[in-house]
Amino acid sequence: MILQTIDYVEGSVVMIDQTALPMEERMIRLSRADGVAGAIRSMRVRGAPAIGIAAAFGMLLELENLLRESDQGGTGFFFDRKTGMSGSRGVAIDPEEAAGKLNQAAELLAATRPTAVNLFRAIERMKRVARENPGDPARLCSETGAEAFRIHDEELERERRIGAFGAALLRSGMSVLTHCNAGGLATAGYGTALAVIYSARGLGMDIRVYADETRPLLQGGRLTAWELLKNGVDVTVLCDGAAASLISTGKIGAAIVGADRIAANGDTANKIGTLGVAVLCARYGVPFYVAAPLSTFDPDAPSGESIPIEHRSEEELIYFSGIRTIPEGAGIYNPAFDVTPAELITAFITEKGVIYPPYGGKTGRLSGAGS
Amino acid sequence: MILQTIDYVEGSVVMIDQTALPMEERMIRLSRADGVAGAIRSMRVRGAPAIGIAAAFGMLLELENLLRESDQGGTGFFFDRKTGMSGSRGVAIDPEEAAGKLNQAAELLAATRPTAVNLFRAIERMKRVARENPGDPARLCSETGAEAFRIHDEELERERRIGAFGAALLRSGMSVLTHCNAGGLATAGYGTALAVIYSARGLGMDIRVYADETRPLLQGGRLTAWELLKNGVDVTVLCDGAAASLISTGKIGAAIVGADRIAANGDTANKIGTLGVAVLCARYGVPFYVAAPLSTFDPDAPSGESIPIEHRSEEELIYFSGIRTIPEGAGIYNPAFDVTPAELITAFITEKGVIYPPYGGKTGRLSGAGS
Repeated sequence: MILQTIDYVEGSVVMIDQTALPMEERMIRLSRADGVAGAIRSMRVRGAPAIGIAAAFGMLLELENLLRESDQGGTGFFFDRKTGMSGSRGVAIDPEEAAGKLNQAAELLAATRPTAVNLFRAIERMKRVARENPGDPARLCSETGAEAFRIHDEELERERRIGAFGAALLRSGMSVLTHCNAGGLATAGYGTALAVIYSARGLGMDIRVYADETRPLLQGGRLTAWELLKNGVDVTVLCDGAAASLISTGKIGAAIVGADRIAANGDTANKIGTLGVAVLCARYGVPFYVAAPLSTFDPDAPSGESIPIEHRSEEELIYFSGIRTIPEGAGIYNPAFDVTPAELITAFITEKGVIYPPYGGKTGRLSGAGS
Repeated sequence: MILQTIDYVEGSVVMIDQTALPMEERMIRLSRADGVAGAIRSMRVRGAPAIGIAAAFGMLLELENLLRESDQGGTGFFFDRKTGMSGSRGVAIDPEEAAGKLNQAAELLAATRPTAVNLFRAIERMKRVARENPGDPARLCSETGAEAFRIHDEELERERRIGAFGAALLRSGMSVLTHCNAGGLATAGYGTALAVIYSARGLGMDIRVYADETRPLLQGGRLTAWELLKNGVDVTVLCDGAAASLISTGKIGAAIVGADRIAANGDTANKIGTLGVAVLCARYGVPFYVAAPLSTFDPDAPSGESIPIEHRSEEELIYFSGIRTIPEGAGIYNPAFDVTPAELITAFITEKGVIYPPYGGKTGRLSGAGS
């Protein structure tokens, strides 16, 4: 099942509010880039591929808003997905102003979260298309709109391939551990790590998933469990600290996680706690896979040390549903990501195939091919 | 500062309600062994040494209740800590009935939590004293009362020694990671792992503590942070998954944790998540210490495999302050403890000194000496 995580419908970005899951399936509709930026920051939409798509749609929004403002008396939306055509009907806008709006939106969106490389990739793609289509606003709108949907659709296609390549690494009866949510909710709708599970299940394999709840925001307990159950997959949730016990018992056949950015040497930034899972897998001889599209590889980052790590607000730990759990006066250490060194990663599952170590050259080459 | 975690005052067990911390410092007063058993099960009192003391006091309660019921018209309490004397004033009770009551209370209390060995040790000590003092109820009461307070006071004395021996392993400026709460709240009032911190601070060392919040019940964020701040110690809380990132950066000079039961070969059961910290410390070359009185060593358990591990209710993970965080239909894996193999433990900090590997013979011998 492909989740409708994020879409662009009639001039609005529509997304499922991931902060309300699993108890409420609430769709939100955003009509301004700053609203999209806010949704990324507050993690109503999260996951490296999904925030890339959200940013592309956010930029498209601003262009449409400009067209709408210039279209005296017009109230309709402009970009239509089905036809790929802009309905701007000859509305005159200043190309400089359009470029300015797009750049402004790009800056706003780029400033939301620093770690996932997909965000910057998507923004760059949108800016390039805009640069290549100056002048005619109808054309600008249809081309940037098409590019935003291409980012979405290409991502989905990659996810299917990741699923297929990854499924070949599993065998029926296996229990797979995952951390955070690298599923349909984090992506264009099928997932990266969870795409492997969905694909294996689609092949008739009996796969059970163990999901780390993933503090502080519980993406594993809230989101991974929710979407696996929605897809009929048997899932058991554990607190992050229990992963060691579980792995040490030999119950886990493989761990599969997603990634927010992968350096040229294979060092991988992913949700805080991933490194601990990788270290445990190495100690207990459990294969540790990173499932990610090649767009997550950043050849400009030679190693994990060059990946900027976002530190999030203290409130994420201090409060839980408004209840204070940590006394006043305590310091808080709350990085959103950690970096797993390449040597702990058994293989990368990408849309071009499974990449085994040594990584250096291969990821650089494949990364170039995929971007 | 010695915390007044648990005491026996005027015929009642008085304890700080650890489920209400850090937001409320609420004392509860219990007058029946089943109330004490309930408080242990619900973790209003927790920590291996503290639940041993609670069980001893719980047994004393039942004996006093029997005396009170037999004392027609009498309403006062009997055992007085200061004089160590029973005020039973010649009340006649059936020695068989007294033994029966004590055994009943012992069974009730022993059935609360299976992992910590201190609980069973304390109950055995109380039963032995009762067996050795049949007949005269005044003597029975004063002797069992004295034994219960001896368990408390000996524990406190051991904690001071653990603190002193452990402090010698630290150096000023060091950051120490701890997991769960092995402080005054878990013990007679000074702590095991945290006694080391208090002792080091008392010697003028500048020590900063990083405390894993310790899901699911957040004893690190709620209790360790609370008592460290109360003692003026600089503490930073992190979610359990962030420990890997923190340790990998080299910021942590040592990890110190408590223990619920230590097998003869040194394998150590402690709060779920401890094993993960130990594996990370081993990988990144950080000393990993277990601070525990010798009463925590169980020579009857040859290795960690013989230690029964309590699995606690699914609700601990599913709900948070009444808010559901995991969707219906998901399984839950919630062991309360994990077992860290001896090879990952740099040393044990005990009241008789620091024990380095190999452990086998030494812990057996020292355990015999201390029990």
